[in-house]
Amino acid sequence: MEKIIIVGGVAGGMSAATRLRRLKEEAEIIIFEKGPYVSFANCGLPYYVSGEISERDKLLVQTPEALYDRFRLDVRPEHEVLSINPEEKTVTAAHHGKQITESYDKLILSPGAKAFIPPVEGLDEAENVYTLRNVPDLDKIMNRIDQVDPKEAVVVGAGFIGIEMAENLKHRGIDVTIIEKAPHVLPPLDEEMAVFVQNELKEKGVKVITSQSAVAFKEKGRIIVLEDGKEFKTDLTIMSVGVKPESSLAEHAGIELGLRGGILVDDTYQTSVKDIYAVGDAIVVKNQISQEDALISLASPANRQGRQVADNIAGISRANKGSIGTAIVRAFDMTAASTGLNERQLRQAGKDVASVHTLSKDHAGYYPGATDITLKVIFDPVSGTLYGAQGVGVKGVDKRIDVIATAIKGGLTVFDLPELEFTYAPPFGSAKDPVNMAGYAALNIIEGLSDSIQWHELNRELKKGAVLLDVRTESELESGRFPNALNIPLNDLRDRMDELDKEQEYIISCRSGQRSYIGERLLKQSGFKVKNLDGAYALYQAVRPEELEYV
Amino acid sequence: MEKIIIVGGVAGGMSAATRLRRLKEEAEIIIFEKGPYVSFANCGLPYYVSGEISERDKLLVQTPEALYDRFRLDVRPEHEVLSINPEEKTVTAAHHGKQITESYDKLILSPGAKAFIPPVEGLDEAENVYTLRNVPDLDKIMNRIDQVDPKEAVVVGAGFIGIEMAENLKHRGIDVTIIEKAPHVLPPLDEEMAVFVQNELKEKGVKVITSQSAVAFKEKGRIIVLEDGKEFKTDLTIMSVGVKPESSLAEHAGIELGLRGGILVDDTYQTSVKDIYAVGDAIVVKNQISQEDALISLASPANRQGRQVADNIAGISRANKGSIGTAIVRAFDMTAASTGLNERQLRQAGKDVASVHTLSKDHAGYYPGATDITLKVIFDPVSGTLYGAQGVGVKGVDKRIDVIATAIKGGLTVFDLPELEFTYAPPFGSAKDPVNMAGYAALNIIEGLSDSIQWHELNRELKKGAVLLDVRTESELESGRFPNALNIPLNDLRDRMDELDKEQEYIISCRSGQRSYIGERLLKQSGFKVKNLDGAYALYQAVRPEELEYV
Repeated sequence: MEKIIIVGGVAGGMSAATRLRRLKEEAEIIIFEKGPYVSFANCGLPYYVSGEISERDKLLVQTPEALYDRFRLDVRPEHEVLSINPEEKTVTAAHHGKQITESYDKLILSPGAKAFIPPVEGLDEAENVYTLRNVPDLDKIMNRIDQVDPKEAVVVGAGFIGIEMAENLKHRGIDVTIIEKAPHVLPPLDEEMAVFVQNELKEKGVKVITSQSAVAFKEKGRIIVLEDGKEFKTDLTIMSVGVKPESSLAEHAGIELGLRGGILVDDTYQTSVKDIYAVGDAIVVKNQISQEDALISLASPANRQGRQVADNIAGISRANKGSIGTAIVRAFDMTAASTGLNERQLRQAGKDVASVHTLSKDHAGYYPGATDITLKVIFDPVSGTLYGAQGVGVKGVDKRIDVIATAIKGGLTVFDLPELEFTYAPPFGSAKDPVNMAGYAALNIIEGLSDSIQWHELNRELKKGAVLLDVRTESELESGRFPNALNIPLNDLRDRMDELDKEQEYIISCRSGQRSYIGERLLKQSGFKVKNLDGAYALYQAVRPEELEYV
Repeated sequence: MEKIIIVGGVAGGMSAATRLRRLKEEAEIIIFEKGPYVSFANCGLPYYVSGEISERDKLLVQTPEALYDRFRLDVRPEHEVLSINPEEKTVTAAHHGKQITESYDKLILSPGAKAFIPPVEGLDEAENVYTLRNVPDLDKIMNRIDQVDPKEAVVVGAGFIGIEMAENLKHRGIDVTIIEKAPHVLPPLDEEMAVFVQNELKEKGVKVITSQSAVAFKEKGRIIVLEDGKEFKTDLTIMSVGVKPESSLAEHAGIELGLRGGILVDDTYQTSVKDIYAVGDAIVVKNQISQEDALISLASPANRQGRQVADNIAGISRANKGSIGTAIVRAFDMTAASTGLNERQLRQAGKDVASVHTLSKDHAGYYPGATDITLKVIFDPVSGTLYGAQGVGVKGVDKRIDVIATAIKGGLTVFDLPELEFTYAPPFGSAKDPVNMAGYAALNIIEGLSDSIQWHELNRELKKGAVLLDVRTESELESGRFPNALNIPLNDLRDRMDELDKEQEYIISCRSGQRSYIGERLLKQSGFKVKNLDGAYALYQAVRPEELEYV
């Protein structure tokens, strides 16, 4: 009887196990899981902290008993695999002090990623510092909360999990400070998009400190010291600065590792050692956009990989085509999501990139409850190849990013975005969806109808002598304005064109970028030199409010 | 100075006008609109009936004055174009009894579609029968409501607008009966999907009569008579049985017409007559999936076409690639959406089609507030080409149909659906999204891992001697069951396999189709002949509740 051993009973590992059973009724399938639980809801853990998910059992999606009853899986929790012997094709696991050795015909490694813990002075003595990767981690945090009733908490690292933890701790009534080493929260997003989340966190009372990291813990962790010497009291500290592949078991078995210690696999998920496969957060994948190696710790690819490795083992050929990385986070009333590569990554890779920022409503503006979506689409300025997209807003951000993720996976370009036909009725969308609008804006750039500059280029252009022309109405200026901008409301522009100079470079702006584009077209056709401030005042105000004037 | 005349000031016409201005600052652009308003929110009209959209002004998205101020458009409402003289390149319009003739260099027709009014006896004398295509139509309906305070209303035609009207009239406290000639509401959807909306309408107190049409009005419309002779009292009747292209103007100008009187255009939107273009609901388009001629009355394609014709006139080449038709409707707490072709259309066209129905949650089941989505994906059983999809549910249906619409536009197949990487955090989705799951289900069919039958094939299979095997738990059976089904809960199936006969054909079912598929795999690998009832009990119960047993 064929014997398949799987190391790791969450996401990739369990997807592989159940799919294998559906393909190989006769195989013996053993799953070794280091922790006490399998198939738990990792992505749900933060929501238990606030009580939004109120029953702990809800997090335990499957049990070994249920998996045996339905799939005849031999699920062994609290079994830590200590070593693999590829020559003898055995694995040895420890369980409550005993060692168990099992042979395998095929071995699938799905060990996941573990929290990266930076070497911070005093961390070993700290009694209130936690990470959150699994249910026992969560239990420890909840115990701490029950025992000390924390008033102040610090979250180190403002990635997706850090932000979810900040929100959920705050919902419990705890004062939360979030500390991020990068210049802005949510490093996977570009600064001007992440700032919407940063502003929301602050508005909801979370203290946000960026460009700083924790350098020391004092008083058993009750004091946290930042690079700049500032100290904070904390009753509870969550470290969420990132993850790294759990690949030491693989390494000791002689399996080849790659990027940052990730397990190398071929496109059928075979490692460098015969009959050993690997899937999930621990493996190196190809980023489908850059075609470069990447580590992508997300549930969706892990589940797919688990299923695909099962297929390959069962003789149904499946190639790992790679991942693009699509993610989302809710921060109080704001949602931020991204897919593909961000502008920073692309520029670092030396790519020539263009981007557009559009501000649209999630559904028809004439129907009640419409809210703003700021959408950024990043693309090749010549071919229009889609590199990535980011969105922020209250509602409907998930839908737009999912659509663009689908477009990227399908090899579509920005030329295709206006062609997409979406469900439209007033409660759901608009006749011209935000994704269509972003496509039109990108086309205008590629086809030379519009020249735009980005928010971070404004000051440079102004220093070089450009004049900023704000085409908002006078009443709009009352809520804030660019210093030293010329103001001619768009509807007056034709009549007041003689106030402008054809030798002068102008940067045109409005609130969202739509009126300024109309103004740009008007001025360009009239012989003026003008560029559109992409994202316009609304984006600038989000990212650089301190540079603006308020009456 | 170039002079462009546009006939029709909504959607396609106005998109063309504003885009033309951005490309041709010097052109004279005149828009003749038959009605009193331009750029009004047609899709919002039903929501004003209930007061959900409470201000009538919200429906008037643009005014001629605003369009002049911003775009120097010469917008002329209440100007009905009576004739076109293609030789002299003039159009003649009537305005308050006067005739005005204007010359053109280019003429764009965007006349839209008008309500189709079937020839019903007594309709001419009826005083309470209305259609709803524009604001004056709405005003008439609102006047009627104000004057007679209707107790009972009838909506004839259960398409998208009919259902919206039924909902909004009901929200006003009016008793509503909806009459549909087809065997089910929402004829653009397949029966088993539309039935969810039908059930919701009934549950919310709307009377639904199908397979019937109105054959006569009596007593000035106060009585409506159906084919079967039944009579209904009605204080207010809405006719919404469909639309037809408003193409008589084009026809009289000698422009070639096609399918059901639609205006024929080439892929640059030129009609058969030089310098006359047409866009919007009035034109014949290519259905991108079938490559056949189609009439598609939707706002999204109309807006795109308007922009594209402007580009073509301005020398930026754009081809009309056709449309796939994506639509959505809210019916009380239920949403139904579709994209592409439905199974009925495909079968009528002689296509070999397969389909899968999946039942999934809109977001992670362990996070509060998850609701069911029933998704149907229709595809070529050999190549996996996506033909269409339909979804029903409380939340998140728009997102899934938009994603599949994007996949169809991108030429993806069902093999690509599992590869799609969506935004996943518990409030937004699942690690395996409903779209991924539908892809997996389709792959299982194509690759022969699963054989399925559809709900409408069940009785035929049972008559041929198949035995229905229900693998739900005993407690689930209490809420309803198939008559004469064998019941072995899935988890007992391995142990009780000796109760089954290897010579016997089995149809296996559970609630959603997921456990039955697991059972199917188990039985198939053990040598049994078994097919999965696609959609399983939940779908069957929605569409054929009367065939089931309730204890």
